[in-house]
Order: sequence, then structure tokens, then C-alpha cells
Amino acid sequence: MPSFTKLVPEGDNRPRDVCDTCGYVAYDNPKIVVGAVIAVGDSVLLCRRAIEPRLGFWTVPAGYLEHGETVAEGAAREAFEEAGATIRVDGILALYSISRIGQVQVMFRAGFDGPVKFEPGIESLDVRLFSWDEIPWDELAFPSVRWALDAWRHAGDGPLGPPAGNPASDERGTSRMMTEVTV
Amino acid sequence: MPSFTKLVPEGDNRPRDVCDTCGYVAYDNPKIVVGAVIAVGDSVLLCRRAIEPRLGFWTVPAGYLEHGETVAEGAAREAFEEAGATIRVDGILALYSISRIGQVQVMFRAGFDGPVKFEPGIESLDVRLFSWDEIPWDELAFPSVRWALDAWRHAGDGPLGPPAGNPASDERGTSRMMTEVTV
Repeated sequence: MPSFTKLVPEGDNRPRDVCDTCGYVAYDNPKIVVGAVIAVGDSVLLCRRAIEPRLGFWTVPAGYLEHGETVAEGAAREAFEEAGATIRVDGILALYSISRIGQVQVMFRAGFDGPVKFEPGIESLDVRLFSWDEIPWDELAFPSVRWALDAWRHAGDGPLGPPAGNPASDERGTSRMMTEVTV
Repeated sequence: MPSFTKLVPEGDNRPRDVCDTCGYVAYDNPKIVVGAVIAVGDSVLLCRRAIEPRLGFWTVPAGYLEHGETVAEGAAREAFEEAGATIRVDGILALYSISRIGQVQVMFRAGFDGPVKFEPGIESLDVRLFSWDEIPWDELAFPSVRWALDAWRHAGDGPLGPPAGNPASDERGTSRMMTEVTV
């Protein structure tokens, strides 16, 4: 098993995890999650998660940005991997800081690029289009899924303005998942 | 010295660096750089870098987001660390993908929060306010510094709209630093 000690590397100003065996500095900075609210008219595409965390709950297609990608390319890749959807991103709908878990989430507004075609990828149990009133609000995977859906609803079809940020109720992204919060 | 082999970890779909000694998976995802164009009237605050890369060249205060921070908090910390400036961020000016080096840069528009006071931090040789015509264009550290300054100029003092993205000349953030490009 790897074993790390917190040390301040030379030229740095805060402790990092340094491997006891080999001296590797595991710089652990926040990561970028890219996702998209993919709409067809008044309906949005949601995936039911086949993996933890939050297996069985619904989310917009989203995941970690990989090296070599732009944020828009990453969002399109995630939509294809999780929902078999080929999308065209339209603009940035929201940018969220989830400081509790070291994430910055960039959420796009998107539509299908070509025919409306989707199917569950390996990380999804199901993929469906939901009209606003059908969205399973009590079964959303993460608070930011709700935030992004709200931002999409608020933006409407017109030109996008400044990206939405965290809601006033959770400005720093420290709340846990909704079902835990509301217990 | 640490030694890594590229392997696809279980449940993943692409090779990651796995330590030959201890099995540690060094997930190396893109990182988030947060920065700010800090303005006083028509002038902007630039720092002359005391560290590599691009030692001696000018930049807006910016650096890697750390765990536990929101993007706005990170930008304010960097302004204080690099320029001794206490700032108030105003909104997101731009979001850049620098896919060549695995960065997403979130650039804010900001002003001083209180008195206009600044001094070089440990990573800066000098900090100065430059009017637009005085900006040392040929001595800027990175292409995205120029992009952010252009975005600030374009935005003016009014309400911010959608964030600027990469310029059409470098949509994926693959260009090297300007002095290299223009040689």
C-alpha cells in the first residue's frame, strides 16, 4: 500500500502528499467536471447512474475533463460515453465551485447534433428525456444537477448571459447530497 | 526515482500512470488556473514573474486553484500572494481551455477591495499598474494573459455577458508562448 507524508516541497507554500517510498509529490488540486444540459424542446436528457457514488440516481451527462480536451470537447465526450448522444454545445450555462470535494463544474447548454438518438453507456442504467414536470426531482444524484437544471430553465431558449454560479443557499459548494441534507 | 507504467485501472477506460513500487494511481487530470484582471480606472495590475516558466515576463495574478477554495476565493488568494492586493471579484470575464498543457483558466474581472495597495509577493519581481497603452505587450508571459486583457478591454465597465472563450486563432489552446510562435 502506498504511504504518504505531508511535507512542504521546496518552493511551495503548503503541505503536499509526498510518497514515503519514492518521493513522488502527489499534487492534488481540484478537478474539472464538464457536463451538459441537453435539451429537445422542453425536455432534458438524464442518465440513471450505474456506478457509485449515487448509483440509481439521475444526473445530466458529466464527468472529469481529460488531458488534451477543451471543456466543450470533454462535455461532448461525456454525453457520448454516458448517453450515446452526439451533441452540439451552445454556450456555458453555469460554473459551480464544489469546494467540499475539490471540483469545479462547467455546465454547458447543448442540443443534439443531428438525430435525437441516445442509449445507456456503460456508466448508465437508463437514459431518458424528461419534460420539466416529469423530472425525478427526489432522485437526482447531486445538488449541482438540480442547480444546472434550474439554470437551464431560467436561461430559456435565448442568448446566454453570464454563467450561473452556486446558489445563495450553497455559495461555496459545501452541502452534501440532497437526500442527506433533508434527512 | 519514481517509476510509473501506463495501465488501465479497473473500471476506467484509459491508461493512467501506476507506480511500479506501490501501485498508486496518479490520476493526472487537467488543473484549474484562477486569475483576475484587476483594474483601477483605465489601468490594470500586472506582475513581473520571479519564477519559471517565463521568469521576467508580465502576467495578471493567477495560479492553481487549491482544495477547499471556490474559484473566486482562489483568484483573490493569488492576487494577494503575487501582488499583495486585496481584491473584490466582479464576475467571470473569460474561461479558457489550454489543452496543450492541461489547464482550464477562469479569469475574473476585479477591483481593489479598499485602498489601492500592492507590492511584489515572493513569486513576483515587480508589480505595477499599466494604462492600456503602457502594457508591455511584447513581454507578456502567456498567450492567455493577452486574451484576458483583450476580454477586459472588450467588456468595458458595464455588466458582464457570457465569458470570453479561446480566440478563433487558438480555439483549443495549443499555441506555445507568443515569443516562440512569432520567431
